[in-house]
Amino acid sequence: MIAEEQRAWAYLSRVTEPPCPQLGALVDECGPVRAAELVRRGEVPDRLRDVTAARRDLDCAAADLELLARRGGRLITADDEEWPQLAFTGFGATAMRDRPRGSVPLVLWAVGPARLDEVAWRSAAIVGTRAATSYGEHVASDWAAALVEREVAVVSGGAYGIDGAAHRAALAGSGTTVAVLAGGIDVLYPAGHSALLHRIATSGLLVSEYPPGVRPARHRFLTRNRLVAAISGATVVVEAGLRSGAANTAAWAAAMGRVVCAVPGPVTSTASAGCHQLLRRGAELVTRPQEVLEIVGRMGELADDPQHPVSPLDDLSDVERTVYEALPGRGGATLGQIAVAAAMPAQQVLGPLTMLEIAGLIEQRDGQWRIARLQRKPTSGADRSV
Amino acid sequence: MIAEEQRAWAYLSRVTEPPCPQLGALVDECGPVRAAELVRRGEVPDRLRDVTAARRDLDCAAADLELLARRGGRLITADDEEWPQLAFTGFGATAMRDRPRGSVPLVLWAVGPARLDEVAWRSAAIVGTRAATSYGEHVASDWAAALVEREVAVVSGGAYGIDGAAHRAALAGSGTTVAVLAGGIDVLYPAGHSALLHRIATSGLLVSEYPPGVRPARHRFLTRNRLVAAISGATVVVEAGLRSGAANTAAWAAAMGRVVCAVPGPVTSTASAGCHQLLRRGAELVTRPQEVLEIVGRMGELADDPQHPVSPLDDLSDVERTVYEALPGRGGATLGQIAVAAAMPAQQVLGPLTMLEIAGLIEQRDGQWRIARLQRKPTSGADRSV
Repeated sequence: MIAEEQRAWAYLSRVTEPPCPQLGALVDECGPVRAAELVRRGEVPDRLRDVTAARRDLDCAAADLELLARRGGRLITADDEEWPQLAFTGFGATAMRDRPRGSVPLVLWAVGPARLDEVAWRSAAIVGTRAATSYGEHVASDWAAALVEREVAVVSGGAYGIDGAAHRAALAGSGTTVAVLAGGIDVLYPAGHSALLHRIATSGLLVSEYPPGVRPARHRFLTRNRLVAAISGATVVVEAGLRSGAANTAAWAAAMGRVVCAVPGPVTSTASAGCHQLLRRGAELVTRPQEVLEIVGRMGELADDPQHPVSPLDDLSDVERTVYEALPGRGGATLGQIAVAAAMPAQQVLGPLTMLEIAGLIEQRDGQWRIARLQRKPTSGADRSV
Repeated sequence: MIAEEQRAWAYLSRVTEPPCPQLGALVDECGPVRAAELVRRGEVPDRLRDVTAARRDLDCAAADLELLARRGGRLITADDEEWPQLAFTGFGATAMRDRPRGSVPLVLWAVGPARLDEVAWRSAAIVGTRAATSYGEHVASDWAAALVEREVAVVSGGAYGIDGAAHRAALAGSGTTVAVLAGGIDVLYPAGHSALLHRIATSGLLVSEYPPGVRPARHRFLTRNRLVAAISGATVVVEAGLRSGAANTAAWAAAMGRVVCAVPGPVTSTASAGCHQLLRRGAELVTRPQEVLEIVGRMGELADDPQHPVSPLDDLSDVERTVYEALPGRGGATLGQIAVAAAMPAQQVLGPLTMLEIAGLIEQRDGQWRIARLQRKPTSGADRSV
């Protein structure tokens, strides 16, 4: 019985180009086995019959499942515990209604030890252009390493450039990484990443809604991108040109109510132009992986404040600061000289001078005040403020 | 009489640390000559008497004016046509009420041929850290050059780093550039920029609210920054650390209702950290000088759209694209094969195939369709979307 269901799912996965909301509705109504039977016989509504007509007599379910088993993989469907129900509810959003590619997937082909529902619970997509610069690859690696260290799964598309750097760093950090493919799980694309994708299949998860043998094509990358966004708590675009798949993934994430983050870069770099465009359109500007963790992590996992330079002058009141800055850079000054320099009555200068002396910032000697030796003169403050 | 007024203005400019709203109010009430007389005699309200007590007997007005005249300079006050009234109305904003440093200046000491009111009408501040990177200096130069080419005056603070790069590029482009100083117009600070500041005084404008001889100090830089923001239609922060005067200038600009722009940079660069902080707090992300022009220019001066890569596939409908991508990368395919690959009924494939053939994207030969030779296979599209 289970075998029959599995064969039905596998058959349905190939009978039309996924995702197909009509097919999903039919399966919801009468289950996969009955749905497969009706499709095979052509006893389905017109629209569904049209899109299944070309492939309904093509049944490679048994062979597909055998290939999947040989690779130690599994089907993940809405019947399984592993199905990340919550991740896919975003597809119900109004913005998606008229976009069939935004539909919930019917079947996912998966290879790897990571559980998809656990991944979706605590994950970030790190995506970007294939034409990454060393800056982009550095950020992708660095952030992926930092995220897996905090047990956040790193999701990406397995491509060259940013995606590859993110996957590799996640693997290097013994973290969980997920590659969502735009073709069958046996079509390791790009070819130069087949070793990388094999490693992901061994320790993380390879996942695709396409049955074995299906080759990636432009529309499949775009369709795949919605799954990257769906199973990720936030989508981080590290580098992207003005037209890029990463921007498409970001659009999916936004439509599903996920947080879209973009990493800024030099305005002179075309590889960052897409990020800047996203930022101008409201994406979250992120500069540290901790900020991503704050978004995808549990409540209360807050990023540390970035380190600010501090100065002993920070805590001075305005009056104290004015008096301090009225002191000469070298040598000492009398009370009267300080009062003139500070444009304050002499009797109002003494109090602040005493406070500054207590704070160790100035010294009094022979009736003159001077900047204390161990402190730097406020030129440092002045310089900083230029 | 005019000489008497000038002497009064010069005396008032030094009698207390500017800006001093109480002094401004007194001058508004009874004019500079009478105000100077009252201050000198101590016949002023308590608060004003306190802040003028230390310097009221110190009258170097004649010497100051002589020095100014020798340098070919002038005083600019609210009595002059050149006074940029509109630029200073921002100081009336509520946010400034309790901040005396946000007050309208009383007197401006100026040297140079540019008219301050004309500058304020069409200008942008380009500011940033002294510790600029080559990236920041490149952007500052490039943008300053582009702005002066469109007759936008470039305002800055004369400092090392970003400020200097902006001033220099503006001069190189024979444009107008204004340096607002934090000390007297005869105290060319920093010393390494004295030649640069001399050139600005010759072709642009040096301006300060401090009388001759006053040395820059931390609080004067902060006070000066409000004037940079005030006389600029927008403030562009090119590079800034987390604590920087540029962020202070930006805060003044925001408080006055001016547009604050920040240039993003690498997240790995501390010189861009302040820009990213400003962007997270709502500053406008700018990537091209044209975007600044759009803000400070006349209505209708719009930035060109950035160039997007284009592809002949852009104009295809979804169905046409699906059919196009169902064609093999090499060799041809029959109508039936294409229908299976596209998961569409054969009779629905023919229309799109014909449209694609008309568009020159595919060719039909011997009952087979193939990608037209001069076109690249959509792997380019697929790649782009990874």
